[in-house]
Amino acid sequence: MGCEFCEQDGGAVLWRDAFCRIVRAAYEDYPGFCRVILNRHVREMTDLPESERDRMMHAVFACEQVLRELYRPEKVNLASLGNQVPHLHWHVLALFADDAHFPDTVWSAARRSGARRAAVSDAALGARLRGVLG
Amino acid sequence: MGCEFCEQDGGAVLWRDAFCRIVRAAYEDYPGFCRVILNRHVREMTDLPESERDRMMHAVFACEQVLRELYRPEKVNLASLGNQVPHLHWHVLALFADDAHFPDTVWSAARRSGARRAAVSDAALGARLRGVLG
Repeated sequence: MGCEFCEQDGGAVLWRDAFCRIVRAAYEDYPGFCRVILNRHVREMTDLPESERDRMMHAVFACEQVLRELYRPEKVNLASLGNQVPHLHWHVLALFADDAHFPDTVWSAARRSGARRAAVSDAALGARLRGVLG
Repeated sequence: MGCEFCEQDGGAVLWRDAFCRIVRAAYEDYPGFCRVILNRHVREMTDLPESERDRMMHAVFACEQVLRELYRPEKVNLASLGNQVPHLHWHVLALFADDAHFPDTVWSAARRSGARRAAVSDAALGARLRGVLG
């Protein structure tokens, strides 16, 4: 079986370069949920040389910055898990106090029905990411 | 109410400097579960200047490296959440296929009783962290 993130983008691509891409996860209740996905197949952050760890985190923090600017969330969550798809990718989530899971994680059992909120468009997110990352 | 990570170390301290500390989380089923906690109270990674983001991630990746060396895990998970304690801290977890939650996250519902495994001692973890971080 092939690797999902080798074979597919993993969401609507908001920004990309030769090293990684930033995509939007398709969860209606979490419009401020992006992923930063390494283009090549690597398992762990410490499998990357230090210069590339920095490059990956630079994209992750740019994504956090843009989500904070455009969503003004209660809290940002950052996570590199990959237990199901062991191809380096970072979840970057803008969370709000009335989300379905808050203050638990989005991987926990839901506490309530989540509040729907307006999604910033892919075009607006992409434009701001290009502004930060070039 | 005060902040838990301002008032307490948050676990057995394995390594520390003036900027952050690495502690062991006290979960019997997850002996390879550490946290890297910023000493001062800051909410989000992008509230830190870039030099301090790098310093924090350097400690996180050192912790990942040491856990990989000493536990040989199936997968490492890294996460900065802070929904409950919004004081910057990174969870660094060494996970195995027979863990209670794998391949779900440790914040998900358990799938099974977790396999107990021998814990590397605090002294051994601390010594190796000092070897990597100085």
